Amino acid sequence: MSPQAPERKVIAVDMDEVIADALGEHLNRYNREFANDHTAAITLSDLRGRRLWQVIPAHLHSTLDNYLREDDFFRNLGVMPHAQRVLERLQSRYEIFIASAAMEVPTSFVAKYDWLAEHFPFIPTSHIVFCGDKSILRADYLIDDNPRQLKLFHDTTNPGAVREGILYSSPANLDVTGYRRVDDWLAVEQMFLS
Amino acid sequence: MSPQAPERKVIAVDMDEVIADALGEHLNRYNREFANDHTAAITLSDLRGRRLWQVIPAHLHSTLDNYLREDDFFRNLGVMPHAQRVLERLQSRYEIFIASAAMEVPTSFVAKYDWLAEHFPFIPTSHIVFCGDKSILRADYLIDDNPRQLKLFHDTTNPGAVREGILYSSPANLDVTGYRRVDDWLAVEQMFLS
Repeated sequence: MSPQAPERKVIAVDMDEVIADALGEHLNRYNREFANDHTAAITLSDLRGRRLWQVIPAHLHSTLDNYLREDDFFRNLGVMPHAQRVLERLQSRYEIFIASAAMEVPTSFVAKYDWLAEHFPFIPTSHIVFCGDKSILRADYLIDDNPRQLKLFHDTTNPGAVREGILYSSPANLDVTGYRRVDDWLAVEQMFLS
Repeated sequence: MSPQAPERKVIAVDMDEVIADALGEHLNRYNREFANDHTAAITLSDLRGRRLWQVIPAHLHSTLDNYLREDDFFRNLGVMPHAQRVLERLQSRYEIFIASAAMEVPTSFVAKYDWLAEHFPFIPTSHIVFCGDKSILRADYLIDDNPRQLKLFHDTTNPGAVREGILYSSPANLDVTGYRRVDDWLAVEQMFLS
């Protein structure tokens, strides 16, 4: 167990779309299977304000779900640019927890755990959380791309406590308002370390 | 996501030794392999104030660790008496989360998830947390047999917030003081529902 100075602020950080490029991998798998001379590849710009499920035909939704359950999906995700360097810097001033809503895809537990060990070895396993509803997190800040989770987190603020949800930009949330927004890890660095 | 009434108090509940009889299974496996005419079986009364690791020879510690990593260990645990009935009753008045320090044994994720689905199907998966350091839990109460976790939970209390660790009795913690103690689920029922 790492020593904990109570006065350090706690930052909880989501995984998919924040430190891990799950959407990119999802698009790759979908386009590899379905894009061809007759069907154009889906790009990030097709996804403004919409999740992938909202832009593909309904009869292919189960295919999308199944990609997430493939053994190697969460093991091979790209790392978001600068996430490693900035998180390691943040650790010197803040208590950092990685908090993933992994309960939605229970087949992902071990792959996510291994992925963190590979790419973020400086995060102790004691500071990894696999959960569902992020209202359970006691943190001063939650950096997440999912406005539903930020709302759950925010609505449980104790009076007087700092408890702020910060929206990490992803195509689906670009029109969401009501939260401080960061577009990338350089913006996170600026917000917390400048 | 279940609807959440912000005014409901949140109770986080540990798994091993609180709702799941991991110690009983651990003893079974150890005694089955090592107890014989020359070596007496270890019983719960041998464990007062001590963890299993402290009463067996050092050269067998890795054997104990390995039991935890066996595929069927966490899948076959007994349910603590009255835990199901009382937790289901508590759910009508409180927000219940199950919070296990599963990061210590990452091979246990899926077995723990399946065990909860089998024995506590009324707990939504959104309310399951696999974590390490339980200071990350935003709850009003944590029911746990591990004083180290209760201390982490308690030391991060916001001024003025209700945030209480409740010690669920297990052999190893019988001499620990400083927390309200419950000996079984009937005592939990009495504490929260009477």
